Amino acid sequence: MITQVLIGILSGAAILTAGILIGHYGISQSSSGAPPSWLKDVAKDVDESLIEKFLSEVDNIQIQENLRELTKVPHMATTAGDEQTVQFMLKRWQDPETGLDQAWREEYMVYLSFPDPKNPNKVTVVSPSDTVLHTAREKEKSYTPDQDDPEVVQPYAAYSPAGHAKGKLVYANQGKPSDYQLLNQTIDLRGTVAITRYGGAGRAAKAINAAPYGVLGVLVYTDPLDINDGLMSDIDETYPHSWYLPPSGVERGSFNTHYGDLLTPYLAAKEETYRIPAENITGIPHIPIQPIGFEDAYTLICELGEEAAPAAWQGAFNCTYNFGGPGFKSTSYFNNSDVKLDIFNHEEVKNSSNVMGVIRGSVEPDRYVIYGNHRDSWVHGAIDPSSGTSVMLELTRVLGSLVQQGKWRPRRSMIFGSWGAEEFGLIGSAEYTEQYFAKLSERTVAYVNVDIAVFGKWLHLRMTKNPLVGYLSGAGSDYAAFVHYLGITSMDISYTYDRTKTNARIYPAYHTAYDTFDYASRFIDPGFVSHQAIARTAGNVLIRLADSLVLPLNCSDYAEILEDYLGTAMTLYEHQLRARNISMEPLKRAVASFRSAAAHLDRVIRTSDLANETPLKVRRINDQLMLLDRAFLDPLAFPDKHAYRHVIWASSDAGKPTFPGLADAFATAESSGQSRHWDKVHYHLSVLSQAIEGAAHTLLITKL
Amino acid sequence: MITQVLIGILSGAAILTAGILIGHYGISQSSSGAPPSWLKDVAKDVDESLIEKFLSEVDNIQIQENLRELTKVPHMATTAGDEQTVQFMLKRWQDPETGLDQAWREEYMVYLSFPDPKNPNKVTVVSPSDTVLHTAREKEKSYTPDQDDPEVVQPYAAYSPAGHAKGKLVYANQGKPSDYQLLNQTIDLRGTVAITRYGGAGRAAKAINAAPYGVLGVLVYTDPLDINDGLMSDIDETYPHSWYLPPSGVERGSFNTHYGDLLTPYLAAKEETYRIPAENITGIPHIPIQPIGFEDAYTLICELGEEAAPAAWQGAFNCTYNFGGPGFKSTSYFNNSDVKLDIFNHEEVKNSSNVMGVIRGSVEPDRYVIYGNHRDSWVHGAIDPSSGTSVMLELTRVLGSLVQQGKWRPRRSMIFGSWGAEEFGLIGSAEYTEQYFAKLSERTVAYVNVDIAVFGKWLHLRMTKNPLVGYLSGAGSDYAAFVHYLGITSMDISYTYDRTKTNARIYPAYHTAYDTFDYASRFIDPGFVSHQAIARTAGNVLIRLADSLVLPLNCSDYAEILEDYLGTAMTLYEHQLRARNISMEPLKRAVASFRSAAAHLDRVIRTSDLANETPLKVRRINDQLMLLDRAFLDPLAFPDKHAYRHVIWASSDAGKPTFPGLADAFATAESSGQSRHWDKVHYHLSVLSQAIEGAAHTLLITKL
Repeated sequence: MITQVLIGILSGAAILTAGILIGHYGISQSSSGAPPSWLKDVAKDVDESLIEKFLSEVDNIQIQENLRELTKVPHMATTAGDEQTVQFMLKRWQDPETGLDQAWREEYMVYLSFPDPKNPNKVTVVSPSDTVLHTAREKEKSYTPDQDDPEVVQPYAAYSPAGHAKGKLVYANQGKPSDYQLLNQTIDLRGTVAITRYGGAGRAAKAINAAPYGVLGVLVYTDPLDINDGLMSDIDETYPHSWYLPPSGVERGSFNTHYGDLLTPYLAAKEETYRIPAENITGIPHIPIQPIGFEDAYTLICELGEEAAPAAWQGAFNCTYNFGGPGFKSTSYFNNSDVKLDIFNHEEVKNSSNVMGVIRGSVEPDRYVIYGNHRDSWVHGAIDPSSGTSVMLELTRVLGSLVQQGKWRPRRSMIFGSWGAEEFGLIGSAEYTEQYFAKLSERTVAYVNVDIAVFGKWLHLRMTKNPLVGYLSGAGSDYAAFVHYLGITSMDISYTYDRTKTNARIYPAYHTAYDTFDYASRFIDPGFVSHQAIARTAGNVLIRLADSLVLPLNCSDYAEILEDYLGTAMTLYEHQLRARNISMEPLKRAVASFRSAAAHLDRVIRTSDLANETPLKVRRINDQLMLLDRAFLDPLAFPDKHAYRHVIWASSDAGKPTFPGLADAFATAESSGQSRHWDKVHYHLSVLSQAIEGAAHTLLITKL
Repeated sequence: MITQVLIGILSGAAILTAGILIGHYGISQSSSGAPPSWLKDVAKDVDESLIEKFLSEVDNIQIQENLRELTKVPHMATTAGDEQTVQFMLKRWQDPETGLDQAWREEYMVYLSFPDPKNPNKVTVVSPSDTVLHTAREKEKSYTPDQDDPEVVQPYAAYSPAGHAKGKLVYANQGKPSDYQLLNQTIDLRGTVAITRYGGAGRAAKAINAAPYGVLGVLVYTDPLDINDGLMSDIDETYPHSWYLPPSGVERGSFNTHYGDLLTPYLAAKEETYRIPAENITGIPHIPIQPIGFEDAYTLICELGEEAAPAAWQGAFNCTYNFGGPGFKSTSYFNNSDVKLDIFNHEEVKNSSNVMGVIRGSVEPDRYVIYGNHRDSWVHGAIDPSSGTSVMLELTRVLGSLVQQGKWRPRRSMIFGSWGAEEFGLIGSAEYTEQYFAKLSERTVAYVNVDIAVFGKWLHLRMTKNPLVGYLSGAGSDYAAFVHYLGITSMDISYTYDRTKTNARIYPAYHTAYDTFDYASRFIDPGFVSHQAIARTAGNVLIRLADSLVLPLNCSDYAEILEDYLGTAMTLYEHQLRARNISMEPLKRAVASFRSAAAHLDRVIRTSDLANETPLKVRRINDQLMLLDRAFLDPLAFPDKHAYRHVIWASSDAGKPTFPGLADAFATAESSGQSRHWDKVHYHLSVLSQAIEGAAHTLLITKL
């Protein structure tokens, strides 16, 4: 759900048409006589009246009914509910009147992690004499019949190992490395259990960072400060009275670091594919971890003893958040008690489906515009992901009808993907990119992702070209494999909310049992008009990508981002690098080359009469635009980051708005001071400079 | 100089036209009226009369004079002689009447290894009292003034470390792992010096394989059995009386395992590029090694004591090749003496140039046909590489004249590369592919290499589509980076000799001071008509690659090779794999998918009227053919082989005519029996099956 990039998209301003077209070329019929029949087709540009027609046909009530259907039952990946959604998608996409040219399912055998319904995970406070003094809720409290569905999965941390941990409790803020480091200065963490709040670090990291200190188990909860603007009461404040999270609400999630099926890295997870031994999986916790609601977290945290934690660690509870003795205050009912985790998760290789659909292109069937969203949810998933799926189905209904009626066929092919098992680590989309790596690399013009279509009220259209938001998380939704692994220009579209109006880190029902049709239709988008706007926007983008004579991708915008990154890098690093005889000149030269090559290509586009010149000229220019992001791939640039190959957009831990690999390498070198780490900085500078120079070369036509 | 593959090339048979065209489409003018002027150009196919014209203009005497000019002085990489050849190439390619559209030089700072002219390497026999009993020749004997040129470099092993080694001599056959293993069963190799003959193992391997046994230094020579059909006397048998190697002739060479600049793996070696510390270089010897002539080898080997070596180890000397005591026979003048190596090689980062030239394409300037050869030699290099360069210059003269006279311009662009520092490890071409990775990957139709144009008399045209010959060596000339690293369809063309007429492993003057104009013009190709035939053949291939409407690349031939490989793999491996529950079914299915997809594409080509349909259709088909080899790349498939990414054509040590990675993984697993090695076999099978399935998908048009 993290915003991503479609270079050049949104240089313009109007909300719906989004200014995605850079240059728009009319079609002029060439000379007299009877030219070949295909001549007109190859020169055709996007048809604005078709877009108008599309926009007018997108219907909010259809989206609402799509959502109602998709959220009837919980549809966690590979469950019976998931299969129902597969059937529903297939039925819709195979409909002879409103469907696509073709639709089918593709299956992968993927490694998932589930709790045991017969033996639920338990979090308890136990006294020295083994009396259970408190038991955390196993299921969220029901406010509507939805939450009583037996298929509502118990809140759990997918990929947390099964196991039992018992120890004195400590409060570790967000579970970042710096948090445990600070805590460890006061408290011996060996044998403890840590409670952390969501935010600041990846889910898995909260446990992975803890283990080296001897922490035995980790709890995680959502602090009302971070999600509810401090509100806590379900009497009148939280859902079902508002969009805020009720006290028993728990964010589920996948606790892994790498995306894609964990047993088959870089290979599609087919039945006979080689699988690594499970003990070789990296990036998952080796100690048990379990999420709980803030009502239980309150009970635990407010009883913690010893020193008060720093101000930045304090949340919204009406008590001081202490570090913990370790353990509880001596004045507490829990005095001397341990916190105990009994985790019964198990892993299983299960069959997960993508549903695929296509509209074949007329002029360039070998150019693909891909549009996708995942289908699986944690529970009913009305917002995540069904808001996006409802939008996708409405969009394909309108486009499919046009195709089935013979009124329109796109210049380029459109591929629609309803991905499976995203919640477990973007698995369906990642396996798809692994299976079709060559074809997708060669032919894909762009990938458009609409996962959570509408995040909340107080709306803000989010469709930026700037990747900065994505920095810390890197792989927030299914665009990850497309942009990071395949180097395909990608975009994530959603309506988000005005952050001056709320501090919620995400919509409050995210990954809980409250993310239901009732919640969506009452608190997120009553009337579904924001959904409709997203469907119109996404469809508009899609049609322009598929039908424009010149692809609506702007390489000069890319140059601008590179210059911004360079400027930041110079400010942050040049002084120290010069002191170590590492020159940033090659990087400066590379960015300058890129800017001048981009200007050159822009000039060629501007000064050409592409509708009347040979179709191979516009194809050549489009290939340059399409493949530009591919030029930034280096499969060896990030040896420790699974499937990150794009040297400009890779994730970064350093949190600086500059080249990610450089920022991370610099941070490591600066903190260790070791010369081999400074060597890595120099190495990455070379990787980066040469990738940018190489990309610049692809924009030149005159010099071979 | 190892034969490589251009898939589909040579299905036909005629020698000169080489049957490279699969399908040939006439141009038919479309309908009445005044169609756009470009319509005819985009539909144009190769012009047979142009090819006839080209063939008739290729001149043997021009080639002879090119060679005379190129071989005036020794032109080892980065020497003054090398710079002379740079200037010569530039002058020719920039000639306004016969030159190309553009020509320029590109420089890289590369890591080379040289002997010290003031302190030559020495190989001596020293008695226990330190008396020097024998000194091996430091320079080859002169027969023509060429060999007296002060720029003739002393025979040496590039990248052998400097150092001194002294020990009892042993004979280690070809220095293969099995040779040292066998020898070690009889003799304690610690502290010895080994003498080996060329052949059977890579140059560097002869020393690398020796070191673990405690061998201190290695000598290498060319046995007359392997090069001279047993002849040894320069009185009447060897050069200057014939093409055979004189007794003092020494094959120089680069003693490294990986190709490309050793300090900048995967990066172009520019001035400010990060360089790894020299001690981190892998694949070069850690003990001194030095090549000597067979006259000195005779003196040493025939005095060795102890047991006779096996029959397969015997060479052409008129004595029994013994293992060595270690050391010499007690009856020998050398009794109790040591052999001593004093090696003064030094490494240096030096400026090496590629000379590049282009003819811009008219219709598809963004499609490249690349033709190349290295320019640097060890000494005068008349055959290696100047025979190829002479041919290239004649070919560019004829094509350049046509372009300069406005009579012709190819449909696609032609790029000519005169690579530097090939002899040190294919450095110039490898750096070029690293620098322009993205552009070359996206746009290159094929790479054609003509290094040693003519290997000898008793001629055989060598231009096979079968890669088997390349197996053990992998990277014999500059096509390596193109095929293995970039996945570009590549071809190596030469006239070789009839191996029923001689057992010479290569032409005898290879890498010696005798590879001169005199040698070439008297013993390899008097009259230069074979050179002429190569120029005609290569030009023919080049013009067809550049001008054909449909690229002359045949995907069904690829299917055939995959089926052959599969058949061999089934025979060799299936039984044992089944016993370990590793299924070969996915591989079988993948090869079947590929065959059917190839048949599908062939049918599309056959049944289309491509000259009259939209030019985007033929472009699409050509993209499928051009990118087919790219689909077999996997940057993670061969973690231990630098810059080998092509899962079908990678080098292999197993020496089986099947999938190289599978063969190597199987051999390792079979010999170790360890389950982790069988896992690697399974893993590689998955890599392979999925690459082949992925490639098959790229051949389909109907299914997206």
